[in-house]
Amino acid sequence: MSNEVKTDVVIIGAGPVGLFAVFQCGMLGMSCHVIDSLEDIGGQCSALYPEKPIYDIPAYPCIEAGVLIDRLEEQIKPFSPVFHMQQQAVSLNKEGEECVVTTSKGKKIRAGGVIIAAGAGAFGANKPPLDNLEEYEDKSVFYMVRKINDFKNRHIVIAGGGDSAVDWAVALANVADKVYVIHRRDKFRATPDMIEKMYDLDKNSDALEIMTPYQLKELHGRNGQLESIDIIDFNDNIQNLKVDTLLPLFGLSSKLGSINNWGLDIEMHHVLVNPTTCETNKKGIFAIGDIASYPNKLKLILTGFSEAAMAAHAIYPYVFDGKELHFEHSTTKGISKR
Amino acid sequence: MSNEVKTDVVIIGAGPVGLFAVFQCGMLGMSCHVIDSLEDIGGQCSALYPEKPIYDIPAYPCIEAGVLIDRLEEQIKPFSPVFHMQQQAVSLNKEGEECVVTTSKGKKIRAGGVIIAAGAGAFGANKPPLDNLEEYEDKSVFYMVRKINDFKNRHIVIAGGGDSAVDWAVALANVADKVYVIHRRDKFRATPDMIEKMYDLDKNSDALEIMTPYQLKELHGRNGQLESIDIIDFNDNIQNLKVDTLLPLFGLSSKLGSINNWGLDIEMHHVLVNPTTCETNKKGIFAIGDIASYPNKLKLILTGFSEAAMAAHAIYPYVFDGKELHFEHSTTKGISKR
Repeated sequence: MSNEVKTDVVIIGAGPVGLFAVFQCGMLGMSCHVIDSLEDIGGQCSALYPEKPIYDIPAYPCIEAGVLIDRLEEQIKPFSPVFHMQQQAVSLNKEGEECVVTTSKGKKIRAGGVIIAAGAGAFGANKPPLDNLEEYEDKSVFYMVRKINDFKNRHIVIAGGGDSAVDWAVALANVADKVYVIHRRDKFRATPDMIEKMYDLDKNSDALEIMTPYQLKELHGRNGQLESIDIIDFNDNIQNLKVDTLLPLFGLSSKLGSINNWGLDIEMHHVLVNPTTCETNKKGIFAIGDIASYPNKLKLILTGFSEAAMAAHAIYPYVFDGKELHFEHSTTKGISKR
Repeated sequence: MSNEVKTDVVIIGAGPVGLFAVFQCGMLGMSCHVIDSLEDIGGQCSALYPEKPIYDIPAYPCIEAGVLIDRLEEQIKPFSPVFHMQQQAVSLNKEGEECVVTTSKGKKIRAGGVIIAAGAGAFGANKPPLDNLEEYEDKSVFYMVRKINDFKNRHIVIAGGGDSAVDWAVALANVADKVYVIHRRDKFRATPDMIEKMYDLDKNSDALEIMTPYQLKELHGRNGQLESIDIIDFNDNIQNLKVDTLLPLFGLSSKLGSINNWGLDIEMHHVLVNPTTCETNKKGIFAIGDIASYPNKLKLILTGFSEAAMAAHAIYPYVFDGKELHFEHSTTKGISKR
């Protein structure tokens, strides 16, 4: 695909609300490109709690978050959305009537309108404040474990005190040569069973060593290859650990990021919109779901679904040069062939 | 059940949106009584097109209208709503802070708030303009066939020219002694196959006779028992048919009816509401779904679902005497025991 593409609507965010916006736009004959910072579609539903049951999706007495995403994916398939994953929308400009979005991977997308469905913002791992961290990322520093065997025979520092840190420490001790668990407190916040397993390994195996209270201080290495890490305690004692790998597991968080710089009316980290169209202060740019705000706003997935319908209808004249939308009840109308 | 009852919220209309309002109120700890003019819950979905596929319910690539209602029924079951079916809400008054709704069956329901989810209004059969029609209803005059065998050996006039008239004429000719089919045009609007079957019976059997173009003129009988019906053609020729049963099958329609008299702001047969709370001009009285209007309103089932959530949240302080609702994301919260 060329680095510059054109579509009807750009949707920022591939969570449930962004996905349903693809459907609503599709029903009105508009094709969509979708941008998301995560690897997979589904937003928090897929990344954070795919197996959590959700109780307030209409006509689903109970549905797991991951299944909800599967169903939405099936529902939008006829409209063949194009996904640009693992990249953020970094700029949004108007060139005449056209909206131009560029992503962190340098993709430039031109469209008649934009729907921001970014939830709480772009989603990423919390990073430790270390110099030159980026230089090591994806080579020696990883924020998640995709395949256990990638860590075979490595010397690893796992930093963090929550479930991920403890669970992965125990799991990786099986394949790595050495796992140091660094935490700035003495207590871990994880399931008691796994904490016990970790302390067992610390006591009875050379493969795992718990070092608390310690924090990460400095990375040493070259060309992205980590050679050792300095860690520091509360009395400023520094130790140097000879390791080739760092897993900072401090959880995920989200932030509006560059959305703050697009000239939109923003209040308390939310984009202000007209409650009956979801249009922002900028013509042709809409916001829906948790990121959108207006008086009495409810942060329900269901509310975002309804806002997706509003935005799709209101964006129509931008995409089709002012053409009026003659809309009937769509509920029993099939999906038109494209 | 006593003729006067008390509840948290009265919902007028048991269509999909009214049903989902039961769920949303239930999630916030409010119990509901639901009033509907039809015999079964589900509104048009059940009464008009239970087998029609619907394509724009989120996370259902396709769902039949009747199945949608089944799922909603299952979803609200934990909240044990009380249904008052086959009756209309005829009055809605405020007594102090309390809302008082009375139904056409004389039921009086007191509640903290009311949600009107009446779609296009109360739903009923189109009736012919005949004197004393009511006197015969449910005894000799029926607007639908529940059990074919109830019509065994009867002498019947079926009036109408659509699918129901033709289909029931053919079906009832098997059990009735005589079926007259009266229609004011010469042509019937039904499936060609059934029309052909009806004309076959007219030609080859004494059980069925088609009389066109004729209209109903007058009913004769006593104490609700029909003895004969006068029918009239365009030249004012009158014929008297000795029959004991009339089935006027002129389709269903809906009307706002008494909702017009409740002091609500109404425009073009719709109740005007605040788009972010769905509250009407009267405090504590809300309208959602197709009956509710505001700028850019979309008449989608999905929109009604979202409005149900808004109304449930906004009605809360009326039900609980001004208590503020401390609301978290409900999506992964289970259904609380009541």
